Amino acid sequence: MAGTVEQKLAALGITLEAPRTPVANYVGFVRTGNLLFVSGQVCATSDGKLIARGKLGAGVTLEQGVAAARGCAVNLLTQVKAALGDLDKVARVVRLSGFVNSTPDFLDGPKVLNGASDLMVNVFGDKGRHARTTVGVAVLPSDAAVEVEGIFEVA
Amino acid sequence: MAGTVEQKLAALGITLEAPRTPVANYVGFVRTGNLLFVSGQVCATSDGKLIARGKLGAGVTLEQGVAAARGCAVNLLTQVKAALGDLDKVARVVRLSGFVNSTPDFLDGPKVLNGASDLMVNVFGDKGRHARTTVGVAVLPSDAAVEVEGIFEVA
Amino acid sequence: MAGTVEQKLAALGITLEAPRTPVANYVGFVRTGNLLFVSGQVCATSDGKLIARGKLGAGVTLEQGVAAARGCAVNLLTQVKAALGDLDKVARVVRLSGFVNSTPDFLDGPKVLNGASDLMVNVFGDKGRHARTTVGVAVLPSDAAVEVEGIFEVA
Repeated sequence: MAGTVEQKLAALGITLEAPRTPVANYVGFVRTGNLLFVSGQVCATSDGKLIARGKLGAGVTLEQGVAAARGCAVNLLTQVKAALGDLDKVARVVRLSGFVNSTPDFLDGPKVLNGASDLMVNVFGDKGRHARTTVGVAVLPSDAAVEVEGIFEVA
Repeated sequence: MAGTVEQKLAALGITLEAPRTPVANYVGFVRTGNLLFVSGQVCATSDGKLIARGKLGAGVTLEQGVAAARGCAVNLLTQVKAALGDLDKVARVVRLSGFVNSTPDFLDGPKVLNGASDLMVNVFGDKGRHARTTVGVAVLPSDAAVEVEGIFEVA
Repeated sequence: MAGTVEQKLAALGITLEAPRTPVANYVGFVRTGNLLFVSGQVCATSDGKLIARGKLGAGVTLEQGVAAARGCAVNLLTQVKAALGDLDKVARVVRLSGFVNSTPDFLDGPKVLNGASDLMVNVFGDKGRHARTTVGVAVLPSDAAVEVEGIFEVA
């Protein structure tokens, strides 16, 4: 039976698929003690298609960027579920680091990242309130519009 | 009565104000075990005005960048004080990650970040010596010249 | 006598020199509990010469980028050895964060970072499989082509 967090995801229309396996010598997550470090997740759907491709400030709209950041958050949760089996075992979302594929004059990275932050709080409640860092980078893998990495505390 | 670290800050002319509350679904810091993760802090004063705006390599001077990085460090300490009540409870500044809003040919990011590193060592002594990563990014929120995030160990 | 990990490094023709001391108020690593945070390492040899200088997408080839990332990994291991005395004390490579000095249209950052990831797995085996984040940044210190920071779990 799905736990509380997955029920909230389902109510938002989000089902977690099995995570995509990295095609290189790294993994989706590493747990050390009570901390779970999740690899940077780009804004791809479970079939590998990018939700938004290109740069904020040059073709990708703010609305598309927010949806992309939300997709990154879904991918983080997919990894967390693979790690823990049950998202209810998350004691706290510790930190999200958000990287926005940006032109040098795009100043609204934080608004983009809210797509990830809002999802975390929607499904985890106060345990979803995290430390956050947002920067605008020159480019991201496969020209993804957004990439987010996460650190989670396990109960 | 102010602790040792705050006395050293006061001797440098620095008073810590209450931290600014993020205007979104994230928070200024999260503590997990003995580790305190502080959100990326841009170079703004306590009233929200940027100490330096724009890019190193295009208008923002090295001297202004150093002052901006120092301002980021002050903002990190503001969050740490809000988290712990007393900066003397910091056992170690573990890591600072510095992001410099840079043109593609600005090579002196580390000199900029020294503005943050020097303040940490000035007020914490050897406990202030941290691991550090410095990168030059395409852009930062609100066109801030510098952003620094931090991890602190709590005694 | 060299431990298992250093023997594997030697078989790859890699000898770890003493780490270079940062010329500022930060250090090469900080240990807190069982976690070792290593400062961002640029792709320099032990005598300070860059393995690759400039941007992927503008002069630095993918092959040169891979060699540069591998060099960053060697520098991380140099710091780990300085911290622990013996690389066999590493229980897990927890996370590598890779920053690639990129033009805005260079999309193969992950292939570059494989130079670091492959070395970790070659010498640590499954303990070397890490979480990873790769982003393309506007510029790096001294125009280094690649910079990698790491978190390690100590046995």
